[in-house]
Amino acid sequence: MLSRNRMLIRSLLSSSFPCTRSFSGTAPPLRKFLETGDTLRQTRIFTNEDVTEYSKASLDSNPLHFDSELARNAGFEDRLVHGMLVAALFPRIIASHFPGAIYVSQSLHYKSPVYVGDAVAGEVQVTNIRENKSRYIVKFSTKCFKNDKLLVIDGEAVAILPTLAA
Amino acid sequence: MLSRNRMLIRSLLSSSFPCTRSFSGTAPPLRKFLETGDTLRQTRIFTNEDVTEYSKASLDSNPLHFDSELARNAGFEDRLVHGMLVAALFPRIIASHFPGAIYVSQSLHYKSPVYVGDAVAGEVQVTNIRENKSRYIVKFSTKCFKNDKLLVIDGEAVAILPTLAA
Repeated sequence: MLSRNRMLIRSLLSSSFPCTRSFSGTAPPLRKFLETGDTLRQTRIFTNEDVTEYSKASLDSNPLHFDSELARNAGFEDRLVHGMLVAALFPRIIASHFPGAIYVSQSLHYKSPVYVGDAVAGEVQVTNIRENKSRYIVKFSTKCFKNDKLLVIDGEAVAILPTLAA
Repeated sequence: MLSRNRMLIRSLLSSSFPCTRSFSGTAPPLRKFLETGDTLRQTRIFTNEDVTEYSKASLDSNPLHFDSELARNAGFEDRLVHGMLVAALFPRIIASHFPGAIYVSQSLHYKSPVYVGDAVAGEVQVTNIRENKSRYIVKFSTKCFKNDKLLVIDGEAVAILPTLAA
């Protein structure tokens, strides 16, 4: 079971997830230690299949995610990507840089709708780091942007990282 | 596409999701209007397949969810179910009673780990209702319990409901 799980992890990590990751600052080194002010980013385009797959996993079948007509009648341009699927970018970004990160809290304020086909950039910025028993309690400002400028999710997260070495 | 989506919704709604739904109070009527103090509940047992499926949809491949040994070394009993998969119970509960519900915000405080096989009861309790342009802005206290007593997630959600008739 463990080896199958490890294979799945490898498979997921090597998936074709469009991703841009960078620490802020000029000429960042390949390996550095996370500091207050650092920002990690990844971009994802949400497909029809992503929405279907997430619905199966979460059992969330709100018709706003499947019925374009109903979504338009509710004031949207089209059916919506699940907000929590978009927000899943945050733990994904943190864990892909810091495997073994333990999530403590997350707040989510949904500001604008995300539609199938939208490219969404998730961004987590370190606002505080506290060491505790050789682990690091890190607070992040967490935001998602659509088309590089429109804020779609705003919030904060706290995670315990096993190391600050990314 | 629409009809295929509607079929998926029907399929999801009729899935074998173990669920208990009730309004609080004695002898609740089959159809009533949501009021402050009302509580909606559903229970879900998270399987290995749920974790795998959610990882594929979210691309969150934190080894804490796949590697029992690593999870034990981090102080847990076994590998964890993704916190945001557990938290997805909240929009699922709200939308299954109020299709077309629009999520505005959610806060999540992870209090205790959830392991594969755990039965988790999600509970959303109405704390405030405000009418606005024939829609209803409803604030919920959102909690998940394991084994009917251990708090695993605590938080709040705000959603816009198209109606208060459940």
